[in-house]
Amino acid sequence: MQSLIDIPPESAAAAEAVGEALGRVQRVFDDELSTDLPPVMDLVRHVERYRGKMLRPTLVLLCGLAGHESAGLQVQPPGSILSDAHIAVAAVCEMVHMATLVHDDVLDEADTRRRGATVNRLRGNEAAVILGDYLIAAAYHLCSRAGTPRACVAVGRASKTVCAGELLQLHHRDDSSLDEDTYFEIVDRKTASLIATAAELGADLSGAPEAARSAFSAFGRSLGIAFQIQDDLLDLTGDEEVVGKSVGKDLEKGKMTLPMIRYLSTERPAARGEMLSLIERACDERAPSHPAAAQIASLLISSDAVSYARERAESYIARAKQSLLTVPESGARRLLAAMSDAVLTRGY
Amino acid sequence: MQSLIDIPPESAAAAEAVGEALGRVQRVFDDELSTDLPPVMDLVRHVERYRGKMLRPTLVLLCGLAGHESAGLQVQPPGSILSDAHIAVAAVCEMVHMATLVHDDVLDEADTRRRGATVNRLRGNEAAVILGDYLIAAAYHLCSRAGTPRACVAVGRASKTVCAGELLQLHHRDDSSLDEDTYFEIVDRKTASLIATAAELGADLSGAPEAARSAFSAFGRSLGIAFQIQDDLLDLTGDEEVVGKSVGKDLEKGKMTLPMIRYLSTERPAARGEMLSLIERACDERAPSHPAAAQIASLLISSDAVSYARERAESYIARAKQSLLTVPESGARRLLAAMSDAVLTRGY
Repeated sequence: MQSLIDIPPESAAAAEAVGEALGRVQRVFDDELSTDLPPVMDLVRHVERYRGKMLRPTLVLLCGLAGHESAGLQVQPPGSILSDAHIAVAAVCEMVHMATLVHDDVLDEADTRRRGATVNRLRGNEAAVILGDYLIAAAYHLCSRAGTPRACVAVGRASKTVCAGELLQLHHRDDSSLDEDTYFEIVDRKTASLIATAAELGADLSGAPEAARSAFSAFGRSLGIAFQIQDDLLDLTGDEEVVGKSVGKDLEKGKMTLPMIRYLSTERPAARGEMLSLIERACDERAPSHPAAAQIASLLISSDAVSYARERAESYIARAKQSLLTVPESGARRLLAAMSDAVLTRGY
Repeated sequence: MQSLIDIPPESAAAAEAVGEALGRVQRVFDDELSTDLPPVMDLVRHVERYRGKMLRPTLVLLCGLAGHESAGLQVQPPGSILSDAHIAVAAVCEMVHMATLVHDDVLDEADTRRRGATVNRLRGNEAAVILGDYLIAAAYHLCSRAGTPRACVAVGRASKTVCAGELLQLHHRDDSSLDEDTYFEIVDRKTASLIATAAELGADLSGAPEAARSAFSAFGRSLGIAFQIQDDLLDLTGDEEVVGKSVGKDLEKGKMTLPMIRYLSTERPAARGEMLSLIERACDERAPSHPAAAQIASLLISSDAVSYARERAESYIARAKQSLLTVPESGARRLLAAMSDAVLTRGY
């Protein structure tokens, strides 16, 4: 994420502190997953390669810095604000997220993730299911030892919400009548809740008061929703090489994305009928590069569906930045704003 | 479990207290899983039917009572010893266990559990994977609110150990050279660790000192190993109607059970070779009632393999009861001993 953005000069110290802290997060992450069983270590090493944008840990750390400004404590250099608890909670959020990636790949029968083969592809669904469970257990084990009971409650609640959102999404698979309200309810739970929790906990661990914690939570929630819409768009229009994972999967797995929901709810019956039969054909073809999938993408792009989804993502980013304005200005806050803009321009 | 044992008269008060507390555990279990999303509720209701022996919650509660005697506190009637934390931790252990059952059924492609269809059979693997995750998240969320940080650490550690054990087992799937040491390492991690934790936490929550906590942990560990050996035996010789789940699954899924390991490591090369080709045929037939599976069962029974496994289970039960002798005598302790014996006589 950071490599995508230009770092404003006044944010240099915050960026440096976060960069250094991310290194510590990675070490904690690796240490916590390590085991004395070689075959288990082998799988763990594979999953370490999944580490990508580190969005959630970065949010814990940056909101930790920005939240310190709200705490009314003595101003400290960024490098001394981030505690072991920040590092632990950052690693916890990434582990929980990584577990959902590993399990999602099983559900989606995906072959590629971060330009490498998925665990399920290489080692079978069984290994992927248990490895995901191992990651979740490691996350909670770490969290329970971080000396931050409130973080444990928040991470537990968010994880439960993520699962409920995924179950709701599964219930609406292949449901071409899915409306926008339900779409946003799913996204809010399955994607935005953990991102909001990461942002809020970072600030909480720096002693930020209730009002500031709520602002960071609202910021994370809006950012998370925008992030998911951008994911929808990338699945449709992304380049598999750049995205680093299989594209066209949403369509193939019957997941209704925002552009598709928009198209089906606004086009005339004839166009709607044509789209539904194209979806059916695309599912039969089961390969995103096949003609039906390409035709779907071109219909969604030439209608207002893709631009509508893009506008919705932009408005959530505007809302996220609005939430930030209620907390004191700082180098970290500027970085959070720059990160928000980068969500919309990211190609992966 | 309790219905299988004769309750000694001096244990009547303990049995009544545990019976009443188990009712509270079930209510907490149901409350924690309930959600405002009807399709999720629908899946949760299905899983509630899985509730069977309630071994782990029963251990938390009984060790809670027996541990109180070690705490050096004023003697109280059993009904007033068990706290909300005991109830919460009992429900947590059952949720973690239930999650592993739901995921195991996906891994084993099992169709039947507790005489009903499995989630994966009814709703597909996707729903079963996420539902298991939902159960784990609910378990941690509940644990983090129980005001017992030590329990959170212990449950996190045990869950991680269970997963590592399952990954090790998966690594040795179809490994006909698996030795007893590795078998016991797998069993210790995947089955005994959570049972040991349930027993230890029950006593811990009653204020039992370190030595007593270790005794309860050792008790649970031996009990758990015996429990798993009995599971192996039931998969081989059990009646599907009585066991309430698919039998012959271990064989079909390439899991080496203790009788099989014994047979392969002690029989002469010719008998060994015959067994290996029978296993291959049984796997091809993929149905436990087919001729090869029946022949395998009969070979294992007529050799010393089954009786050897039974003796090993008996010796672990003897060890479990030995561990109990180091804690003060009580009605609850007697019930724990009676429960241990019942592990060997259970048909399900």
